[in-house]
Formats: sequence, C-alpha cells, structure tokens
Amino acid sequence: MSARSCWKYRVAEALTLHEDPRSGNCYKIKLTAAVLGVPLRVQVYDITKGETRTPEFLARINANGRIPVLQIEEGGETRFLPESHAACWYLAQGSQLIPSDRFAQADMVRWMCFEQYNHEPNVATLRYWLHILGEARLSDAQRLNITSKREAGIAALTLMEEHLAANAFFCGDAFTLADIALYAYTHVAGEGGFVLRDFPEIVAWIARVEAVPGFIPMF
Amino acid sequence: MSARSCWKYRVAEALTLHEDPRSGNCYKIKLTAAVLGVPLRVQVYDITKGETRTPEFLARINANGRIPVLQIEEGGETRFLPESHAACWYLAQGSQLIPSDRFAQADMVRWMCFEQYNHEPNVATLRYWLHILGEARLSDAQRLNITSKREAGIAALTLMEEHLAANAFFCGDAFTLADIALYAYTHVAGEGGFVLRDFPEIVAWIARVEAVPGFIPMF
Repeated sequence: MSARSCWKYRVAEALTLHEDPRSGNCYKIKLTAAVLGVPLRVQVYDITKGETRTPEFLARINANGRIPVLQIEEGGETRFLPESHAACWYLAQGSQLIPSDRFAQADMVRWMCFEQYNHEPNVATLRYWLHILGEARLSDAQRLNITSKREAGIAALTLMEEHLAANAFFCGDAFTLADIALYAYTHVAGEGGFVLRDFPEIVAWIARVEAVPGFIPMF
Repeated sequence: MSARSCWKYRVAEALTLHEDPRSGNCYKIKLTAAVLGVPLRVQVYDITKGETRTPEFLARINANGRIPVLQIEEGGETRFLPESHAACWYLAQGSQLIPSDRFAQADMVRWMCFEQYNHEPNVATLRYWLHILGEARLSDAQRLNITSKREAGIAALTLMEEHLAANAFFCGDAFTLADIALYAYTHVAGEGGFVLRDFPEIVAWIARVEAVPGFIPMF
C-alpha cells in the first residue's frame, strides 16, 4: 500500500520550496512530497554564494538565513516554515508517513532527532566541507574538526547498521519520515569520505527506500 | 486552562527516566511530565564519569550511550525511547502541549529542530564545557571552537529575542513543547557565559514559562 493511499492532498494551497538542490535537507522535503504526490514549486538559491543571507531573504523568507523553507499560500495568506523536518511534518500529517500509534510516532521523532543531532552535523557536514566547499576553503578550526566528525559519523552509521540488521525500516516495517530524514545524507555519505560498503545493512535499506512507490532521486 | 485539562494520563504504564540531573535534555522530559501531572521515576547517572557508556547501559538502555532515555513498561513489555524530544512527544501526545492545528504543529516541530541544531550545540555545549567539565579539561579542538560556538549561540538567542518580541510563546499564544525544549538550556545560558540581560524579551518569556501551572525548576 503506498503512503498516499489513505490520504487526500488539499489542493487549495500552493507550496513553494526555497532550496539549494545540493542540500540533502531540501531533498527530504522533495522526496516527502513526491511519495505523497503533492505538487511543489521550487525556488533555487546558491548557499555557497550567500544567496540566503541577503537582507531581502532574511526579512521575508527566514531570519535564520537558511534553507530549506517551505512557503505555504492558502486563502490569501502566505506563511513560511523553516527546518526540513518541520516541512516534511507539515506535508505528511494525516498520511502513513507518520505512524498513528503513540510509541511508533515518538520512536519516529527519536530517529529524526538522531539524524539532526548525531548524523547530519557529521555525515552531512563532512560532505559539505569536502565535496561542496572543498578542503582548500576550510578554516583551521574546521580542519581540526575533520577527525572528530569522521569518528562521530562512523558511530552514527554503525548505530543505523545495527538497527537495520533487525528492522526493514527505522520504525519496524513501516516506511516513515524517519527513513526519508536518514536517507537524504546517508546515500551520499561517500561524498564526505564515508565508505558505505562497510555497512551492508545500510546498503540494503537504501535499496528498499529507492523501491518505495513515488521515490525520486536527489539529482 | 492548564495543559492537562482536556487530557487523561494512562495509569496502566510505569515510566522511568534514565537521566543526569545536570542535563537540560533530561529536564525537558521532567518538566513535560510535571506540567501534564504524569508520575515519573528517575534513575540517575553521572555522564562525566562514563556511567552511560558501560557495556550494560549500551546493551540494555541505549546503544548510543546517551541519556535521557525514557523506559516505558506496559502490559509486561519494556521499551526504551532515547532522545529528549521523542520522550516529550510520547508524554504529550493528545494534550494541549502539542497543537492539533496542522501548521501550528509543524511550526512547533520547526522550533524543536531549531533547538536541536542551532541552539543546543552552542548554548548547551558551552555550558557543558565551561560549567560542568571546566576549561582545563577541554581539548585543543574544543578550545578553538569556543568563539564560533559563542557567536552561533548569540545568533540563536537573537533569533529567539526577535520572535518573542511579537509572540508570548514560540507557537503564538500557546505554551507547547517548543517552549519546554527552548527553556531548558536558555534559562541556564549564563552558566555558558551568555548574558541573558541583553535579551529582555527572552527574560520576560522565561518568567511566563515559570508561571505555567505545574512548572518545576531544573534544580
């Protein structure tokens, strides 16, 4: 059964994603929308050129100077929702991407927090530093942090590997926002110098995610 | 109207919080339980002595070696829920601490993500380094990161200050999990060297949080 089968999209609203296509955080939202069949316009920025730090962006889109931001237009009102997981949550409410069982829903929040705190600052940050910015542009403090971020990233991937040895997806058998959140930067972890073939359970889970109806690739 | 007024706690389950009382992440859960009137046992660990990295803890409580973990016993089954926001989510489902409106609920998730990603790694980490560990025990990499974490922490507090100039709480007029998440480390930010009197809107919000029925202090 696909995630959208019990669920009806509210066509009254228009959604625009403010994004940089290289960002896994932006991709999480596009993947959620694709799996749910929700139409999404995009407006593209280059974060390496400071395009999300202009006075206009800070005043109108997000005072935090970051993407992604989901712009929601409905009934003549325009609202902005920063943070990738908040936008995914907005899109997926009422669908099977968020379990309705009390423990399962909290357990999904648990893996989404793990992604934000243990995974993204290490796995995604090393990809950004080494693949997008390039090592020559790093500060001394960033260079000194590479080793600790490498170790913490491997620890996060190891925890995922152990969990996936006993579970098809992060919340048992159900494909949820936790899988979308963790897939975004895990499947491109090689670009940050992580060796995914060392994690066969993760590799098998990546294939399962990519087989979900409605799946779209990052690029 | 208090947060628990429309809500009934399920007395069939027994809850134990594995915690270090100095941790704001643990306090978030105790504050959520107190506001909701939910009884919570605690089991105390000293994180600076490695008590959450023992083989027993890693095998039984949390393979990630971190607290808080909420232990839930119900119908002969014992389950463990790591991550502070996941435990708060578990406790608060169905209560007024989680808005039922679609946008408001996603906006609450937004502030909880902001806390995890922009606030806690700066405001809470400097408090841990300078107040709990002590500067003499820091590594060279940690020392080199103090300035950037100070700047990022001030940026997070400034964003909160601007939001609170127009809102009583983080999701408008409603006291929610977003306020609990952000209160935990903000009200002790002085222990990390941040100067709260520079943020009068935050100071006024702290007083509003402390006036919520059921509020308990961190210490």
